[in-house]
Amino acid sequence: MTDGIADPRYARKVCSAQHAATLIGDGATVGASGFTGAGHPKAVLAALADRMGRAAPRERAPRVEVWTGAGTGPDLDGALAAVDGIALRLPYQSDPVERAAINAGRSEYLDLHISRVAPMARRGFLGPLDVAVIEVAGIDEAGELLPTTSIGNNQTWLDLADRVILEVNSWHSENLRGLHDIYCAPGFPAPDIPIRSPGDRIGAPRLRCAADKVVAVVATHAPEGNDAFAPPDALSRRIAGHVLDFLSVEVAAGRLPAGLLPLQSGVGNVANGVLAGLADGPFENLTAYTEVISDGMLALLDAGLVTVASATALALSARALTAFNSGDYRDRVVLRPAEISNHPEVVRRLGVIAVNSMIEADIYGNVNSSHVLGSRIMNGIGGSGDFARHGHLSMFVSPSTARHGTVSTLVPMVSHVDHTEHDVDVVVTEQGVADLRGLSPKQRAGRIIDCCAHPDYRPALTEYFQRAVRESPGGHTPHLLADALSWHRRYQDSGTMLG
Amino acid sequence: MTDGIADPRYARKVCSAQHAATLIGDGATVGASGFTGAGHPKAVLAALADRMGRAAPRERAPRVEVWTGAGTGPDLDGALAAVDGIALRLPYQSDPVERAAINAGRSEYLDLHISRVAPMARRGFLGPLDVAVIEVAGIDEAGELLPTTSIGNNQTWLDLADRVILEVNSWHSENLRGLHDIYCAPGFPAPDIPIRSPGDRIGAPRLRCAADKVVAVVATHAPEGNDAFAPPDALSRRIAGHVLDFLSVEVAAGRLPAGLLPLQSGVGNVANGVLAGLADGPFENLTAYTEVISDGMLALLDAGLVTVASATALALSARALTAFNSGDYRDRVVLRPAEISNHPEVVRRLGVIAVNSMIEADIYGNVNSSHVLGSRIMNGIGGSGDFARHGHLSMFVSPSTARHGTVSTLVPMVSHVDHTEHDVDVVVTEQGVADLRGLSPKQRAGRIIDCCAHPDYRPALTEYFQRAVRESPGGHTPHLLADALSWHRRYQDSGTMLG
Repeated sequence: MTDGIADPRYARKVCSAQHAATLIGDGATVGASGFTGAGHPKAVLAALADRMGRAAPRERAPRVEVWTGAGTGPDLDGALAAVDGIALRLPYQSDPVERAAINAGRSEYLDLHISRVAPMARRGFLGPLDVAVIEVAGIDEAGELLPTTSIGNNQTWLDLADRVILEVNSWHSENLRGLHDIYCAPGFPAPDIPIRSPGDRIGAPRLRCAADKVVAVVATHAPEGNDAFAPPDALSRRIAGHVLDFLSVEVAAGRLPAGLLPLQSGVGNVANGVLAGLADGPFENLTAYTEVISDGMLALLDAGLVTVASATALALSARALTAFNSGDYRDRVVLRPAEISNHPEVVRRLGVIAVNSMIEADIYGNVNSSHVLGSRIMNGIGGSGDFARHGHLSMFVSPSTARHGTVSTLVPMVSHVDHTEHDVDVVVTEQGVADLRGLSPKQRAGRIIDCCAHPDYRPALTEYFQRAVRESPGGHTPHLLADALSWHRRYQDSGTMLG
Repeated sequence: MTDGIADPRYARKVCSAQHAATLIGDGATVGASGFTGAGHPKAVLAALADRMGRAAPRERAPRVEVWTGAGTGPDLDGALAAVDGIALRLPYQSDPVERAAINAGRSEYLDLHISRVAPMARRGFLGPLDVAVIEVAGIDEAGELLPTTSIGNNQTWLDLADRVILEVNSWHSENLRGLHDIYCAPGFPAPDIPIRSPGDRIGAPRLRCAADKVVAVVATHAPEGNDAFAPPDALSRRIAGHVLDFLSVEVAAGRLPAGLLPLQSGVGNVANGVLAGLADGPFENLTAYTEVISDGMLALLDAGLVTVASATALALSARALTAFNSGDYRDRVVLRPAEISNHPEVVRRLGVIAVNSMIEADIYGNVNSSHVLGSRIMNGIGGSGDFARHGHLSMFVSPSTARHGTVSTLVPMVSHVDHTEHDVDVVVTEQGVADLRGLSPKQRAGRIIDCCAHPDYRPALTEYFQRAVRESPGGHTPHLLADALSWHRRYQDSGTMLG
């Protein structure tokens, strides 16, 4: 492994995770590394949680605020949430314990567009950052920090925090060296982002930190890796088939080149199914400008179908990460800060094809990515909005029903809006593809009901739409406000949206 | 005036507006110049409307689709809508007759982010464009076209249309020469947009067109100019005062420089009031990177408080336009294609301060800019999303009530979402400023109710919020779906939102 701790200024500061945790002040705001289970600190914040958990209730220090790149793991979000240790969390979480704390009203959560987090933090919009806790793979002789499996907001937290704690994790592979490209865009006017192809490198290979801010260095040897997704089921394969058929039509019509345009794929079973479908599909010489590299994307890289992929993190299963660690991907993978991996300037310039999961869409094409029944958070918006707003094509995918058919993914009105009608080009379910481009709201409604809704719900959607056209107070986006959310209320009351 | 029609290839094609209108095929898709009442063709489409109006019903040709930059005037939208002549309209309208047709369900309307229109059209997402009808101020000897008071999507329509009809309007001032900067960003990867300051010029001074596509040239002498806004009333002045106080605090806190950052201001009475407030305010050496130059912005330019303004159109009253036409603004005003005036790459790089009007906001910070009662369109989203998503600061302003106090602008849940909670930094009413940055949904609710809601509605909002916190199925964004839209329903049923 890598450099270890070569710089003597840092070697002097080595201490235990338990000691380092004592350097995090009561009620501190902590900026942690980590993005989708990759590259988060695995020892210091777990030690902080342990200390919080052992304190008697009246001796408990105030809870911390936790900023990250995106989701972490049970050894960070899970451990802190289990002791009710997170006062406020941003900008994304996907941990079941923290999610439960948020939905119980015990933890505040600020769900942000991933590309906007670093700029907002730099401008002071999120308040001061007390401590950065950053996992690195090594510290070289000049004090530069070798990044691990994610970049996220690491450089920004290092820049902004008053104090820095480093976890040097020797588990990480020597082969990570050369993958990273650290470039930030501070100030106004901000510097250009001179990326013209997903593989372009424009920055530095290492993270930098003012050595005098580092108050502790903790040596770890901690494995990582997410749970693997289940292999795509029949439903996911049908959705993937529709996506690929749609892309083929676009190529045939001259609206996409044969090698498509850079792909972005969200996380989750369905998005993974789409990537698996690409492995069997007709497309070659693909590229990706995306947020994370998942198992499905790695398989496409290994098969040579994707020639280069840009992301901010490796969101790999333990098994895929082991394989990645033994390979050499430096000419095919670039890991960037989340600000850059999701930057609207680059997403728009390259013309990304964005494929993201959704919780529900309504008949007019508004998409809910984050809330159940308008109130309960699942994970968060993540980078979906960064790509959906500015990509060449914005696609949202989901099975047409959930919870054994008791929930229709297509509803009269979504209970929460993350992506408005203005940002959604195509909706795909296992039933088919609704191409919404160039359509007015009423035209979209017909297309979504006919092409995407499950047959069990199609008549009721049609009935709502036709009644709304007749009785609504406006003919542009016909809605009956007494009934628009009635499907969700029925589910709440009776356990099914079926009438 | 200008060049007249200097190129003999064009001079040969001069004909009447009535004849030119016969060259627009039945059911054609027409790409017209024009943006907020500036620079739209004033003769040919009015002649088409006249012909449609005189035809017996059974002899009527199919209605046309109309694409523009944004709103036009009574001589285009109004004339065509009066004869029910518009089958589909995009990407923005503000004409009372066309609005009524849309809300009666007789005209389809596709409301788009202004910055995305040209790219979507170029990619073929909106279908083929049959005819461009473009107003110009003159045609020089080389066949290049001198633009008028707006650029909008003119170059894109000229590029895409099968046939082109030009209106050469000799009413326009010689002083328009040198204001324009024509630069488009087609293809993937798209070219960079090398604007680093609002006044930067990066393109050509004239529009270009393949001469063999031009089928008719119509000479006009047609004045233009919008109705003037009423002088700011006490309510607008209070809102403006809050905006300026907020900006002063940001400067004092070091989050904004003394000369602020480039301003964007939407249209309407309240936005105009904010600009009027700036005329008396403490700020100097301001710049603007905005969609339109309104009377308020022109006053700031004339006072030397704004040193340079970039926009895509002059949205001036007749009186202000006359003054503009007699002045020389070439070193202070740049008119660009709407794709560039609103481009996310530039808006984010410059760090624009976006101030836009809204119809309503909900307690969690979601904003509705476009719909009444979830169904009836007012105007459209326009460029508000282009600036709100990517600016340094995204502010939405409105009086706290409408319709003589029977409508609260702050509601439990908006009836339509154009800007999600993720894109709204600050909400301002005459009651005060709700600074939502860094706040979770529940924290935002407290701030919005306390700082922005009208006292008549504050208790009922508080009651809803507290009940939702207790009874909602999720504690992240507490909502009671049976009651969330009840305020709108009460207004529909009883004419007031007051309980």
